[in-house]
Amino acid sequence: MELLYVADLVGTFVFAISGVMVASAKKFDVFGAFVIAFVTAIGGGTLRDILIGSLPVGWIQDVTYIFVIMVACLCSVLFSRYIINLSKTLFLFDTIGIAVFTILGLQKALDVGTPAVVAVMMGTISAVFGGVVRDVLCNEEPLIFRKELYATPCIFGGVLYLILDRSGLIQPAVIGITIAGIIIVRLLAVKRHWSLPLINLEKIRH
Amino acid sequence: MELLYVADLVGTFVFAISGVMVASAKKFDVFGAFVIAFVTAIGGGTLRDILIGSLPVGWIQDVTYIFVIMVACLCSVLFSRYIINLSKTLFLFDTIGIAVFTILGLQKALDVGTPAVVAVMMGTISAVFGGVVRDVLCNEEPLIFRKELYATPCIFGGVLYLILDRSGLIQPAVIGITIAGIIIVRLLAVKRHWSLPLINLEKIRH
Amino acid sequence: MELLYVADLVGTFVFAISGVMVASAKKFDVFGAFVIAFVTAIGGGTLRDILIGSLPVGWIQDVTYIFVIMVACLCSVLFSRYIINLSKTLFLFDTIGIAVFTILGLQKALDVGTPAVVAVMMGTISAVFGGVVRDVLCNEEPLIFRKELYATPCIFGGVLYLILDRSGLIQPAVIGITIAGIIIVRLLAVKRHWSLPLINLEKIRH
Repeated sequence: MELLYVADLVGTFVFAISGVMVASAKKFDVFGAFVIAFVTAIGGGTLRDILIGSLPVGWIQDVTYIFVIMVACLCSVLFSRYIINLSKTLFLFDTIGIAVFTILGLQKALDVGTPAVVAVMMGTISAVFGGVVRDVLCNEEPLIFRKELYATPCIFGGVLYLILDRSGLIQPAVIGITIAGIIIVRLLAVKRHWSLPLINLEKIRH
Repeated sequence: MELLYVADLVGTFVFAISGVMVASAKKFDVFGAFVIAFVTAIGGGTLRDILIGSLPVGWIQDVTYIFVIMVACLCSVLFSRYIINLSKTLFLFDTIGIAVFTILGLQKALDVGTPAVVAVMMGTISAVFGGVVRDVLCNEEPLIFRKELYATPCIFGGVLYLILDRSGLIQPAVIGITIAGIIIVRLLAVKRHWSLPLINLEKIRH
Repeated sequence: MELLYVADLVGTFVFAISGVMVASAKKFDVFGAFVIAFVTAIGGGTLRDILIGSLPVGWIQDVTYIFVIMVACLCSVLFSRYIINLSKTLFLFDTIGIAVFTILGLQKALDVGTPAVVAVMMGTISAVFGGVVRDVLCNEEPLIFRKELYATPCIFGGVLYLILDRSGLIQPAVIGITIAGIIIVRLLAVKRHWSLPLINLEKIRH
């Protein structure tokens, strides 16, 4: 679908901007900022492509992604005063981004014949692992392992997609409902401060 | 060999449990704990598969590993009080795990035609690199670079395997002796506090 | 070209020595030092090979690199007193190293048919990403994101190579001028303390 491709580029753009913001907080130089923007935007999809053996990775086969990230970096610097005021809009697009990344990642995994459980994992990896690579390169503990309900909506969305897809619904409906579902779960999670329980093997010891 | 496959799954199970324990110490949430368990258990084999070009990686082709890790995570939480008392048993299984991972990694490398020195490296990577990826994702210095004699038994085992294999012994004997050798070296190393010399270019400067 | 292959091995050797030096500063053991030497020397090329799908990775197909790194580790320890006095020579060879890594990485990317912009990226990744992986494994912030003008000469060299190559010059001239260009830019950058501007979205906010 054309629309999904455009949404993918928009997600890439927004992820890249969030990468520049993190790099700015770390006081990196412009090269470092570009690298962080890049891995944030395409790190998840790159890991997925490597694991399933779809090489060269996606952004080598379609350089549009590289240019979108370059433009995002440029915009971050040129319009930084506006971007900071746009945080709510960015959050919305970020949420659309993880929804689209999840679905495209899941579809790509299914296309190469992976089992359902792997496809859901690949969808989730596509959406959230760019942030993990970003945090590793910034020498920070990955945020999603502790603080935010970020991966759960993707896992939920992946399962939802598979159920809807097997129910015989037409593709656009499956995709639309899944995106809506991921966005709703994520917005609710943030609004109501939902978070996953921490793992704590100690407390049971007593 | 069927037995080696079972031992591989047991090793995966024990590595995943050790990953959950690390995640618990880091106060990650359940998603973070699953990711850490996962990379600890399959990180080494995944890196090996990528480097030698055996894609999709192993656990995508046989999802048994994914389910074993899920069960290990569940068991960690449900039986955590017992697991802590089982530390000696876990250490034993962990040692069997690195032995089996080494052999299977080495065999897989030989199967795709890598030279002997690469095969030994791939065996060692299979056994120890899951722990490295775990430490990187936990934002810790990799343990095996400093404190524990962990990789050396694997390198020793890899070389032993190749020597035995070329001596004309039957496969089960080669495998059995190699596993025994790795376990003995590792147990001795821990018992007698063997460690590798630190690298120190400074001291020679004076 | 034979000469480029030899220069590649020399670059590998020097990168490995710089890795041992970092490992020594981190007080790793000899195994840790070998791993750090190894990833510093071949990390960039390995990532490039994975991304473009040239698997198994280069150093598996030609084990000369592995032996060069082993010899470099041995030399670091045996001749450490001299190496410290050789820092200027090492810096020169390091600079030649990044120049050669850039060109070989770029050529390999072009050989598999990547677009020009990707080829420049792959050349740069080949030259600088070994250092990034080294820093990540050492649990340090990657140096090149903040302090040194290290990647810029590679990007410059990559673009220069492509321009010269399309101008109809003979290959040896293209390679020679590109190497000279990268070395000059890097030496000037170090001599004159050039650095990239930091990214700072905050300052514009006021």
